Amino acid sequence: MVLSDVRAGARNEAGIAAVCGILKQSLGERFQTGASLRGQHAHTTTYIPSQLPDGVAFVESSEDVKAIVRTCAEHKVPVIPFGTGSSLEGQVNAPSGGISIDFSRMNRVLEVNAEDLDCRVEPGVTRDQLNTHLRDTGLFFPIDPGANASIGGMASTRASGTNAVRYGTMKDAVLSVTAVTANGEEIRTARRARKSSAGYDLTRLFVGAEGTLGVLTSVTLRLHGIPQKISGGVCAFPTIKAACDAVIMTIQMGIPVARIELLDDLQIRACNAYSGLAYQESPTLFLEFHGTEETVRLQAEQFGEIAAECGGGNFQWTANAEERSKLWKARHDAYWASRALAPGLNALSTDVCVPISRLADCVTETQEDIRKHGHLATIVGHAGDGNFHVLILFDDKDAKEVAGVEEFVGRLNARALSMDGTCTGEHGVGQGKMAFLELELDGAVDIMREIKRAVDPDDIFNPGKIFRLR
Amino acid sequence: MVLSDVRAGARNEAGIAAVCGILKQSLGERFQTGASLRGQHAHTTTYIPSQLPDGVAFVESSEDVKAIVRTCAEHKVPVIPFGTGSSLEGQVNAPSGGISIDFSRMNRVLEVNAEDLDCRVEPGVTRDQLNTHLRDTGLFFPIDPGANASIGGMASTRASGTNAVRYGTMKDAVLSVTAVTANGEEIRTARRARKSSAGYDLTRLFVGAEGTLGVLTSVTLRLHGIPQKISGGVCAFPTIKAACDAVIMTIQMGIPVARIELLDDLQIRACNAYSGLAYQESPTLFLEFHGTEETVRLQAEQFGEIAAECGGGNFQWTANAEERSKLWKARHDAYWASRALAPGLNALSTDVCVPISRLADCVTETQEDIRKHGHLATIVGHAGDGNFHVLILFDDKDAKEVAGVEEFVGRLNARALSMDGTCTGEHGVGQGKMAFLELELDGAVDIMREIKRAVDPDDIFNPGKIFRLR
Repeated sequence: MVLSDVRAGARNEAGIAAVCGILKQSLGERFQTGASLRGQHAHTTTYIPSQLPDGVAFVESSEDVKAIVRTCAEHKVPVIPFGTGSSLEGQVNAPSGGISIDFSRMNRVLEVNAEDLDCRVEPGVTRDQLNTHLRDTGLFFPIDPGANASIGGMASTRASGTNAVRYGTMKDAVLSVTAVTANGEEIRTARRARKSSAGYDLTRLFVGAEGTLGVLTSVTLRLHGIPQKISGGVCAFPTIKAACDAVIMTIQMGIPVARIELLDDLQIRACNAYSGLAYQESPTLFLEFHGTEETVRLQAEQFGEIAAECGGGNFQWTANAEERSKLWKARHDAYWASRALAPGLNALSTDVCVPISRLADCVTETQEDIRKHGHLATIVGHAGDGNFHVLILFDDKDAKEVAGVEEFVGRLNARALSMDGTCTGEHGVGQGKMAFLELELDGAVDIMREIKRAVDPDDIFNPGKIFRLR
Repeated sequence: MVLSDVRAGARNEAGIAAVCGILKQSLGERFQTGASLRGQHAHTTTYIPSQLPDGVAFVESSEDVKAIVRTCAEHKVPVIPFGTGSSLEGQVNAPSGGISIDFSRMNRVLEVNAEDLDCRVEPGVTRDQLNTHLRDTGLFFPIDPGANASIGGMASTRASGTNAVRYGTMKDAVLSVTAVTANGEEIRTARRARKSSAGYDLTRLFVGAEGTLGVLTSVTLRLHGIPQKISGGVCAFPTIKAACDAVIMTIQMGIPVARIELLDDLQIRACNAYSGLAYQESPTLFLEFHGTEETVRLQAEQFGEIAAECGGGNFQWTANAEERSKLWKARHDAYWASRALAPGLNALSTDVCVPISRLADCVTETQEDIRKHGHLATIVGHAGDGNFHVLILFDDKDAKEVAGVEEFVGRLNARALSMDGTCTGEHGVGQGKMAFLELELDGAVDIMREIKRAVDPDDIFNPGKIFRLR
């Protein structure tokens, strides 16, 4: 089992040189070829090695994107869209070289339609920026993958995060996109109606396509009303199984929980050490409820009963914002607390997702695997979706350790697939999960290849990602 | 503007004869060619003329489907999947002849995973059958398009209906499908995890593809817990605008209304006449709330306040099932009450969907159009989604009336598109909305064509639907 497939593709040197010349001419200072900047644009947040693009184009409009795609299409040169570079599976690498399109200057909120609970933004808008922009409208954009990612990147990796259990993923949040396709024209995948049966669902096809079918130029998003009241709470459980049973009952009873996060015992221990906290060091659920004063109370009370039934400890909750923040501190600190377990080491964050009935099995077996192989790794799960992350700490200079991590990730994915789960709940495939995608969906990947070849016959859009074309 | 595109395609007579011979041999009595049965399988619920398949195959397994697709692929003969024939835009017609695959015998519930709130069914299972099967599990399948349609058909047209405002559409309900593609192999589009970022979203591509990319052989569905309590209510408004304002406020406040249906004044008058009722003859909203005793009361009270603020009349609601049924009687009777306005005439049901901020404008302008042109037509809307139906009554033997109806439908669609809406919120494109799809999505339809050609190069899957291949 190979963790990631980062084989360099063939480079079209003549085409790349021609395109760089043309873009330097047409974009001036907005086209850069310095090694340092190119390095930033192949930045990966894992140990997947960087593969630099040949130039970075800072776009400011759809017209810029069209012109670049036309030039690259004519010369058969790769185009790699770049948002903030927070993707985790090598999505922004350039294994065949080519042009990175940087969207940081294409970051306007184009319209907010408060009555319709939607907005349209350029791909470079980040989720924090959008929520700041929306603050006075009473609306918010709920998807929260952790990083302050760009909306274009979140759409392209089908991102989700802590509150997907209530608000869904980018698949649910995106109403429509505009994208520049291989002929250099811009298409719009849907109108602004909340639902439609008008032909193939191209919106959902571009969401999660990781830039391999075209370059997004705007995204229309569904918004939600800011809840009148938010309450939060925390509850320790004797075992992962008991915690997961509480999650299953919560979902089955239809309690519209906004977040329900699972931290394993090592993660809690790490948080206690990192922030001087005193959580009980056992598997723990962190919850958040959105509603009115009355409904958040009802929800918290209902969950308290479930927790007690499942053998959980005292469920502490509050509707006071400051106290809620205190109760949630361990969850907020999780990443850095884990890193602090071994400050000198590198970290790999990987995710799988299984049916929630199998979450306890999958997490427990993964903990055993970690122990058995002597790894240092914490687990944090978006338990309501059956999705969890393993953050594994290791020395990326030690080839043997790297090989051990690769083997671990292979076993983790095989385990999730054996439980009818998926190799990635929210990070996407990129270069990191290609081998697992084939195992997961088999013949369906051939249909993906047929679509890719039809829509992008010269393979200019983010080549070498999701699958090999063969 | 032409209402529907029912031009006959080229018939591959030699291929059709060969396939009929082979299927007669292999399927015996399960392959039928009688005119009456073939006629039933081209049944359309509108006045779109029937175009009969050459034979009907009653399948009982994926293996049957694979064998038929392989035979048809080899001889380049069309394959048209058939559920219950309740589609509204000519989806089951056979403009180039071919084989209708009847799924009525492929109607097993294959698995129910109560802890995961999902199930897997064969395409011929109807929604009533599924809900009967689920009764003892405490779960239900919420999507309700009115007709007792098959799950395969509902997936293929991206159906929704009255409670999509709360539970979403088939796009949201389908977790995964298996489908037989052009090479005669069966693919599976996703695993059973609640979310995934594993490659292109083929699930959503098959949902709404109207059988043009392959033949579904099973559908995995998300289920929901049966609400502890259901309350229902009704409220009259002075104008469509006032009713729609109440809808917008309800959605904006995040009240998780399960159904919010709008009936126009003529529809209410028709219901009063049909069932001897005494509703106030003005635009009226019918609501349903799902939750606990406490939350349905809270929701109803909140809506009552909104209705009063928008100038609505007294909001009557109840959590008693029998009384709720009485309050909702007009909504339940709507279709037959409209038909009874003119028992001798035919009826066309057509749907559009607009951003909810434009729903009042779109409905009001449509009413004016109806009056101005002397049509007899009622309006019922799934108001929370901005989706509404016009049921227009006319004499289908009178060419002038038919032409008038076509022109009306053309204006209705142009109006919805001018408001950034869609030509179909839930009926699909079929043969009826092809011209409007081109107006709605323009260049994006070319991407659909590229996908169709790549996945189904010989155009055997339900040809002549959604778009012309050119």
